[in-house]
Parts: sequence; C-alpha cells; structure tokens
Amino acid sequence: MERVANSFCFGGEQLRYKHQSTSLNCEMHFSLYLPHQLAAGTATQSLRFPVVYWLSGLTSTDENFMQKAGAQRVASELGLILVAPDTSPRGEGVPDDPDGAYDFGLGAGFYLNATRAPWRDNYRMYDYVTQELPDLINTHFPADADRCAISGHSMGGHGALTVALKNPQRFRSVSAFAPIVAPMQCPWGMKAFTHYLGEDQSTWRDYDAVALMQAGPRPLPMLIDQGAADQFLEEQLKPALFIEACSAVGYPVQYNWRPGYDHGYFFIASFIEDHLRFHAQYLR
Amino acid sequence: MERVANSFCFGGEQLRYKHQSTSLNCEMHFSLYLPHQLAAGTATQSLRFPVVYWLSGLTSTDENFMQKAGAQRVASELGLILVAPDTSPRGEGVPDDPDGAYDFGLGAGFYLNATRAPWRDNYRMYDYVTQELPDLINTHFPADADRCAISGHSMGGHGALTVALKNPQRFRSVSAFAPIVAPMQCPWGMKAFTHYLGEDQSTWRDYDAVALMQAGPRPLPMLIDQGAADQFLEEQLKPALFIEACSAVGYPVQYNWRPGYDHGYFFIASFIEDHLRFHAQYLR
Repeated sequence: MERVANSFCFGGEQLRYKHQSTSLNCEMHFSLYLPHQLAAGTATQSLRFPVVYWLSGLTSTDENFMQKAGAQRVASELGLILVAPDTSPRGEGVPDDPDGAYDFGLGAGFYLNATRAPWRDNYRMYDYVTQELPDLINTHFPADADRCAISGHSMGGHGALTVALKNPQRFRSVSAFAPIVAPMQCPWGMKAFTHYLGEDQSTWRDYDAVALMQAGPRPLPMLIDQGAADQFLEEQLKPALFIEACSAVGYPVQYNWRPGYDHGYFFIASFIEDHLRFHAQYLR
Repeated sequence: MERVANSFCFGGEQLRYKHQSTSLNCEMHFSLYLPHQLAAGTATQSLRFPVVYWLSGLTSTDENFMQKAGAQRVASELGLILVAPDTSPRGEGVPDDPDGAYDFGLGAGFYLNATRAPWRDNYRMYDYVTQELPDLINTHFPADADRCAISGHSMGGHGALTVALKNPQRFRSVSAFAPIVAPMQCPWGMKAFTHYLGEDQSTWRDYDAVALMQAGPRPLPMLIDQGAADQFLEEQLKPALFIEACSAVGYPVQYNWRPGYDHGYFFIASFIEDHLRFHAQYLR
C-alpha cells in the first residue's frame, strides 16, 4: 500500500492510497479522511475511531466525494474516519463496456461479484468493499472495526443499502442519497446485472435493495435523502418501490424528500452534515 | 446571457451562465450562487444582496471554487451572493501559450489588461472583472453594487489584492488564500507579464500587489491565509515581501499562517467560512 497524496483539511488529513487488490486483480486507489483528533496526535495509539464508508455513483472515482461533498468539516468535528473506494476495478487489463458507455464496466462496478466472463475476474466490488478494503483500513489505520456505518450516492446508494441489508451485524447504520433501490427494475441495473450476473434473474435478487427488503432483514437505522428535481427519478431511481417494500415489512426508514434538489453533488453537499450526524449517534 | 446550469444548493441556487464578452472578445462562462433568501422568494424585489467576487487560480475555470470550496453553506446563512468568473478568455480564436503551458495563456489571464500582440485583443481580464462582469451581475441579479467584497486563490489572490488596492472605493473588504503577491519577482508573474505587458517593467507595477502597497493605498479590511506546507511558497508566493510592504506603509492586514496546509482546495475549504464571515462584517 502506497500513499499517493496527503493534504491537511479541517485540521485532519485527507489521504489517497494505491494498492494491489486481491479481490479485483488490479491496482486500486482509495481516499481516506482522518479527523483532527488523529492528525493532531492527541489520540493515544490504542484509541480507535469509527468509520463511515462512502460508495460513489456511476462515473465517479474515490476522489469525487472527498473533493465535492464538503464532508470533512463535520467528520473532523465528530471524530469520524471517512473511507471512499473507487467505483469499479481499473486499469488496462480490466474489461470495459465495448462501447465505452458510462453506465457499465469501468466506473460502474455496482458493488457486486460478477459471475460471468469476462467480468468475473475483476468485477468483485462486493468482496472488495465488504472484506478486502475494511481489512486494509482496520490494519493500517486506527479504525474501530466494531463501529462502522455505510453511505453512498446513486449506484453507491444501491451499494450502501444492499451491503448493509446483507450485513446488519457489520454496520451500526446506513444512509443513502438518491439511491438506485430497484436495479432489477431500471435500465441501469438491468443492463449491468445482465452482463455481470447473466440472464437468470433469480441471481439478481441478492443485489437488489427492494428484493432484499422484501425478505424482512434485521433493521438498522436507515436515512435516505432524495431530491424531487432529480433527473433520474422516474426512470432509474423509483423510490416508491423501496418505500413500499419497507412499509410492507415494517422496516423503519427516515426518508427525506427534498423539493428542488437534483442528482448532483450540490445536493449531497447540502445534506451530508445531516447524514454524518445521523451516523454519529449510533457510532458513539 | 444564457443560463447553462442550475442546481439547488443549501436552500439557494447554484447557477452557471454564458455570455459574449465585449472586453474579451469571446464567449465566457461564470458561476453564481444565490443564497436561500433569494431562491425562496422571501426577498422582495427591491431588496438587494451583498456580493463576494471570487477569482480562481491557474488552470481553474469558473466552476472549481463552486464545486470544491464548500462556500455555499455559509454564504446562504449570511445572505451573500457569490460570483466566480473564469480565469482567462476562452475559445478557438483566443491565443494560448505556444507550448500549452499551464501558467500562461488559457487558464492564466492574471487579471490584467494585456498591451502586447497577440494577447491584447482578448486578455483584458482586469476590465472584465472590474467592469463588465459587475455590470452584468448588477443588472441581472438583485446584487447591491455598493456592498461588494473580493477574494481569490493564488493567481486569483493576486487578482483580488491588486483589484482591491486599485479600487478601494468599490470594495468593502478583500481577502486571499495563498496569493501571488509579487508577480514582478516570481517565475509565474515574470513569464506572464513579459508576454502580456512587454519587457518594460515600469508597466508591471500596476499589477503587482507589493508595488501597489508601496504606494500607500487607502486601507481596506484585508485577510490573508497562507499554508505553511504550500508547495509554491518559496519560489512563487513569497509572502514576506507583502508583509514587509504592508508594514512599511502601516497598512493593516490580518495574516494567518496555517501550519500543515498546502496550496490546494482542501486548504481553501478549511478556511472559506472564516473569510466569508470576515467579509460579512463589512457588508452588512
């Protein structure tokens, strides 16, 4: 693991690392924020800090959230480590959408383990974000493996919800901005799942938040923000499907409908403070 | 003038416009933030809001500050309009550095009026940011022309300081992050001024903050933040030259030395709140 960038930010440290990923068979970057308590050296060696994992959306890398969301101010105040992985495997040897489309292949790993050739050798983002990356973080940084939360945006909101619903013992809370909640029922998800997982839709349910919710999972504190002016709302995001699924099984979700807000980072920046404070309640 | 982007952000509106610039003889973009008091329609038509102009550094456009500094949260709270122009003229017909260097030509207008061919037909950023752009803003938005402040980063810090020192009647306050204070004495400035203004260095003094300060200008409230880990500190920024010049004429400046911080946007994001609150004191 090699550090490739570091900057002071709100009294803490904004860092970027690269490493060879065994899950993904390629070199990966991730970004990390250490709050001021760590940078200042006031924390003792034995003190460990809670972690919020952030999963980004289509076309993003590990850097977008750290550069655009403005999350570090509140993370530093609350003593939270932030970790943002990339959105797919990367590099020359990694297969991409043959047409170079933004919604499949590079930048569009959908946080699943692909089972179909040629994708299955690299596209194992589920293993990466649930096992390999947390192991790296817990080994190399003063992170408390027992105090984690997960959040994300759009495709990364899908990632956060599905990962948390499948691993409620691993996370204290989960949140999402404008998540893809029903990839089995929207063009982005159907395209990706067909390629990564094949035609048999029974294998898709394991990565679909609505389907996972219908199974009645163990509840975690859950917060979702959705902009009412989101350009992908009706065709891709379909929030009503998830609200209905939660309601049907009695799963408690705090769902904030935000008039006027669209799908972009200005929306995330406006409400990231609420999300970090939400997680911090359960991470103390 | 045409609106090309708009997003809600912290209850206000993040906007981007393009227009044909008469000063620069090309099409220009600028970005603008309207605080929540305006977006919500609670302000009456006759109420006008103070404006903070932001000038960006080398390689930036009008978008970087709005995407990376996280300024909108506090601007919305304080009721400030934010305006960010591009850093140079743009387009196919605009001459650029023959080697495509980042520090001259496109993205590097240095907020001056060029007097040498071929630059003088387009590179008139001084006129653009002091006259054409404020006229546009005051005409099309509820901006109070009598309550303006100016700030900027690096080359844009140079712009903010020189524009304010030459126009103290136009601004209530001025601030800068890691400004180029002595372009006549650093490689970035000497290269740019030689091309834009010619070999006669007597013409350079009009765009050099240290030289302008030596003339004993009328004081304005002035705030500067400088990172101690800034990679351009010694070769390009030379803050001691400006501090000495201020001291020699008794010009009051609040100068904050920030251990650990580098030249990038994580530094700006960490202290933009302080700068906006500083300006707001004088804009009320």
